[in-house]
Amino acid sequence: MNHINVGIVGASGYTGLELLKLLINHKYFKISYVATTEGGVKLSRLHPSLSEVFECDIEAFSASEAALKCELLFLALPHQVSMNYVKELSEYDVKIVDLSADYRLELDTYEKHYCLHVDKPNLQKSVYGLPELFREEIASSVLVANPGCYPTASILAIQPFLNYMKKDTQIIIDAKSGVSGAGKKCSEKTHYVSINENHHAYAALTHRHAPEIAQYVNMSESKISFVPHLLPTTRGMLCSIYMSVEKDIDAIEILKEYYINEPFVRIRQTPVDIKSVGGTNYCDIFATCKDGVLFVSSAIDNLLRGASSQALVNANLMMGIDESESVPFIAYVP
Amino acid sequence: MNHINVGIVGASGYTGLELLKLLINHKYFKISYVATTEGGVKLSRLHPSLSEVFECDIEAFSASEAALKCELLFLALPHQVSMNYVKELSEYDVKIVDLSADYRLELDTYEKHYCLHVDKPNLQKSVYGLPELFREEIASSVLVANPGCYPTASILAIQPFLNYMKKDTQIIIDAKSGVSGAGKKCSEKTHYVSINENHHAYAALTHRHAPEIAQYVNMSESKISFVPHLLPTTRGMLCSIYMSVEKDIDAIEILKEYYINEPFVRIRQTPVDIKSVGGTNYCDIFATCKDGVLFVSSAIDNLLRGASSQALVNANLMMGIDESESVPFIAYVP
Amino acid sequence: MNHINVGIVGASGYTGLELLKLLINHKYFKISYVATTEGGVKLSRLHPSLSEVFECDIEAFSASEAALKCELLFLALPHQVSMNYVKELSEYDVKIVDLSADYRLELDTYEKHYCLHVDKPNLQKSVYGLPELFREEIASSVLVANPGCYPTASILAIQPFLNYMKKDTQIIIDAKSGVSGAGKKCSEKTHYVSINENHHAYAALTHRHAPEIAQYVNMSESKISFVPHLLPTTRGMLCSIYMSVEKDIDAIEILKEYYINEPFVRIRQTPVDIKSVGGTNYCDIFATCKDGVLFVSSAIDNLLRGASSQALVNANLMMGIDESESVPFIAYVP
Amino acid sequence: MNHINVGIVGASGYTGLELLKLLINHKYFKISYVATTEGGVKLSRLHPSLSEVFECDIEAFSASEAALKCELLFLALPHQVSMNYVKELSEYDVKIVDLSADYRLELDTYEKHYCLHVDKPNLQKSVYGLPELFREEIASSVLVANPGCYPTASILAIQPFLNYMKKDTQIIIDAKSGVSGAGKKCSEKTHYVSINENHHAYAALTHRHAPEIAQYVNMSESKISFVPHLLPTTRGMLCSIYMSVEKDIDAIEILKEYYINEPFVRIRQTPVDIKSVGGTNYCDIFATCKDGVLFVSSAIDNLLRGASSQALVNANLMMGIDESESVPFIAYVP
Repeated sequence: MNHINVGIVGASGYTGLELLKLLINHKYFKISYVATTEGGVKLSRLHPSLSEVFECDIEAFSASEAALKCELLFLALPHQVSMNYVKELSEYDVKIVDLSADYRLELDTYEKHYCLHVDKPNLQKSVYGLPELFREEIASSVLVANPGCYPTASILAIQPFLNYMKKDTQIIIDAKSGVSGAGKKCSEKTHYVSINENHHAYAALTHRHAPEIAQYVNMSESKISFVPHLLPTTRGMLCSIYMSVEKDIDAIEILKEYYINEPFVRIRQTPVDIKSVGGTNYCDIFATCKDGVLFVSSAIDNLLRGASSQALVNANLMMGIDESESVPFIAYVP
Repeated sequence: MNHINVGIVGASGYTGLELLKLLINHKYFKISYVATTEGGVKLSRLHPSLSEVFECDIEAFSASEAALKCELLFLALPHQVSMNYVKELSEYDVKIVDLSADYRLELDTYEKHYCLHVDKPNLQKSVYGLPELFREEIASSVLVANPGCYPTASILAIQPFLNYMKKDTQIIIDAKSGVSGAGKKCSEKTHYVSINENHHAYAALTHRHAPEIAQYVNMSESKISFVPHLLPTTRGMLCSIYMSVEKDIDAIEILKEYYINEPFVRIRQTPVDIKSVGGTNYCDIFATCKDGVLFVSSAIDNLLRGASSQALVNANLMMGIDESESVPFIAYVP
Repeated sequence: MNHINVGIVGASGYTGLELLKLLINHKYFKISYVATTEGGVKLSRLHPSLSEVFECDIEAFSASEAALKCELLFLALPHQVSMNYVKELSEYDVKIVDLSADYRLELDTYEKHYCLHVDKPNLQKSVYGLPELFREEIASSVLVANPGCYPTASILAIQPFLNYMKKDTQIIIDAKSGVSGAGKKCSEKTHYVSINENHHAYAALTHRHAPEIAQYVNMSESKISFVPHLLPTTRGMLCSIYMSVEKDIDAIEILKEYYINEPFVRIRQTPVDIKSVGGTNYCDIFATCKDGVLFVSSAIDNLLRGASSQALVNANLMMGIDESESVPFIAYVP
Repeated sequence: MNHINVGIVGASGYTGLELLKLLINHKYFKISYVATTEGGVKLSRLHPSLSEVFECDIEAFSASEAALKCELLFLALPHQVSMNYVKELSEYDVKIVDLSADYRLELDTYEKHYCLHVDKPNLQKSVYGLPELFREEIASSVLVANPGCYPTASILAIQPFLNYMKKDTQIIIDAKSGVSGAGKKCSEKTHYVSINENHHAYAALTHRHAPEIAQYVNMSESKISFVPHLLPTTRGMLCSIYMSVEKDIDAIEILKEYYINEPFVRIRQTPVDIKSVGGTNYCDIFATCKDGVLFVSSAIDNLLRGASSQALVNANLMMGIDESESVPFIAYVP
């Protein structure tokens, strides 16, 4: 099989770095284009840990050049920036996995929670890149909206129980993320001294990932109560989810059946931990039931299953190759 | 005022150390007796950080000697051990603040969740040492059951909203604790490598602090869904609590009124963090409401407000001195 | 005894916060003036952990107002800023403890490593605030230059061995500091993700604390090889020091004799650790000798013994009160 | 090419786990035998993070079975245990990479620092598995002694400068290691609370890795002053090395020339950090010179370059395949 040329736009951030790490040794994909908005720098300047491993020039993004050089592009950009780039790129023949929020939501939901959308035609065509839900649609799509990290861990944990939950139950999602989820930009909030030996909620009940979760579990926004917290870790995401069920169920058994053929989901007999999925594309899930309340706990690596390795699975699907190709399964443990 | 002689039984653990640190410079209390079950060692051997600060012999516990030397004793012992010591001590004239679970619960609840109780008469007489609820009873008690760490943070967060919550609402308590809460004993679970860069739930829906919370918010056990998690920090505890309310309320205002004269509770305008209470007796609380769901977030230092400094407040009350005497208000921040 | 009015200029940083924490409960000092260069904000806005503990307005610095309100001022400012403020203040009758580097070095050394000095007359008069070396001079001084953190830990470790070291030995100082030493300002270097699970040297052999150490151990700059490293901790500083000695010596015994009456130095029988001094003004020291090489290990809290609590000792001395007054001896352990 | 059957003895520890992780996807090696001293358990019980990734039975070690099933064995065992196993295995036709200290040192040095040696004939034949020094000898060896972690980072940093250092200079090695280096066994020293926010030296000037370093840089033990420190990190090792040189040299240039064709050594222009090598087999080295003192800083992943991935390189060499086969080059950053 010939190489497939792919590119990364937005290579300076953490998810850009993770994409690079996944693609360097990919069996079929070849990194043919790496860009940021500014460009003009060597890759090893931005990511010194890749010195002598992989080197290239980082370009200032140009839609025509990107499309010329690549069959598929990963966009690891802030929302709003991304839809402008996608709009430009849609004039060319290039497939896109977009890691921003710009193509994940229905128009009105998007505009309520983010901003005006400038690329409505492509929003219509985009497919939500959660393979367990939309594997076939992804495979035939040219524009995949890669899910948010919190939604990935939440939707995969909720979905198997939709038929068991009490009508009108509130779904409580108490989520915890490592600091890399806040991005590479420095602020008082991401200062080592602010994070170390600390823990707190933020955007309580108002985070923009709540409507994304609601949309893909087919519930009203008002039934999802979502509160994220910041963990003193670099990576990792844990979602602790609570809902009322009609009667006490064998939650582990339901999970096992639901995900029986899924390669990127593991059902665990004890509460899941973030370390066992760090460095992998796994979503680990545990669940237990008592007094009519179901507790589901799911863990992912926020930068991989929550972003870059999930993007790679989507790209594999879109290009017709094995979805597991070069996807990481071995955790960083210890 | 003359000194009041006090003693610590169970001085080797973290809460024992915290008691020592609080008592060394106490204005009225004098440490006259320090014991462990084994004894026979200098204090600075157990706690090298106190070298040249405070030194004494650690005795093997003897009820008669303890009672002879002290007017009040702090017991920082495992449950079951503690009730045997209290039983012995009750033949003498000495007041007790017991940091174990042995005198916190009603008999049947205790025996259901722990073990047979061997000291029922004293269980009858004990007072639950949460000053905001039982200040007067504590002041006239000779045996105070110091609350658990999770119950302290949970009850203080729930109590103000009891009149606002929906009849029959489930109360979800998603709690997170630093590792010191697991005690000084080494195990695979407390190994640095197991905790660092990790996070997970444990004892999901089955932890023994749930019935303690239920008892003191006057609800059925089955209405409290409690899941604790282990944080990669030494200290700190955060409780994220969810309940349904009849209508959206001004939660901050309700908290402020409820705790208007309480010196050890602070109401915050933004989600609370554990670092701002680390090293203090404060319980910081934040709350917000949306779509009929109330989210309350409370933070304490698990070793202080969750154990030793709360024990000191109780001792102050029992001995008729200012409850704030030598209680820490200044956090370890940064 | 009446209160002594003191002020803090530069209250927004970590050392400013530590000064506030030490002064809030000081027996004699009263915080009468708190300023930053900008001013115009409530203290609890800058330091939320002090909410309901201590509140005041933060002023924009004015020399006349500061001098009017205070008998003694702590300046917790960047170098260069500080000497301009001291110069202004020297027209008034107010004592100063300056935490910057501006008054620590001889003129030519200062100008070689920092910048031109604009306040030479006061530089002449200043006393280096290391109590173990200059207790009497400090007591009669009106301007004390508070030592740097690395120099404090290094000089106290080297000084006792000056008579035992080989003539012309190189002194190697391999130093490690927690991140709070880099200040509150955010940068890529202090981002949580950059520090966590990481460790590296910086300013190898070129750090400006080297000449400060050299000056106060009376050696040529070229004989001090100083390399600092950044630790993934908030607080703490460890100096590992190596030098050649004429013959193997009983290093612990020499340390014990040298510091026999010093309240802020502890000699330990095993290698010192930073946690046992965290939160205190202690400098813990251990030493051992083998094959003609002496290894000395000293530990301090970089923000306290390395800055604010040492400043408090100096202020106590300057105002004629007990040097230990309100100085912290009890570590944050665990 | 056919598969080469390999085995791991001592699979329960951290280095055993790292070997498994490296071998699972190895192009030529096939894991055919996994053992511990006890055996009788499934692999996923010992290492839950490998669930659904790789599963097998863990056997109780038997020399004959191991030799029957494998062409090459990795022994990840404590010293003393290892030499007994090697002795037994030497009756069979199987190559061995031994990760213990048992075959690294000359007999008298070993017996001075460890214990009596029971397998002297094999000690004679063993080759020290540092590829940069003994690549050819390794390739033709049947028993490779995999170097210690501290020696690996130290020797690689010192070796290039042997011709430049002052005759009779002392070499100071101030080394820092993450906690995984202390092994998986729990103790008070490895308790999270003991390590977190802490740092200290241990075995100062008396650690058993000092003679190993001395032997392979061809110096007398008394000229190596080695002090290791414990870092609050899981992985990583940094060696800060100081020596006197005849004259100031272009240290970076010397390093670059010395390691010009070495795939596992990187020369950096700024002080190296442990994160950039975490997860890889790289040894990163930086050096600088001032006033006749040379400072060299080297960083490795203590579990990989300091143990398991170096063992893999040795195995690759011994089996005649590309030394870089399946060796990790991409760091865990961020």
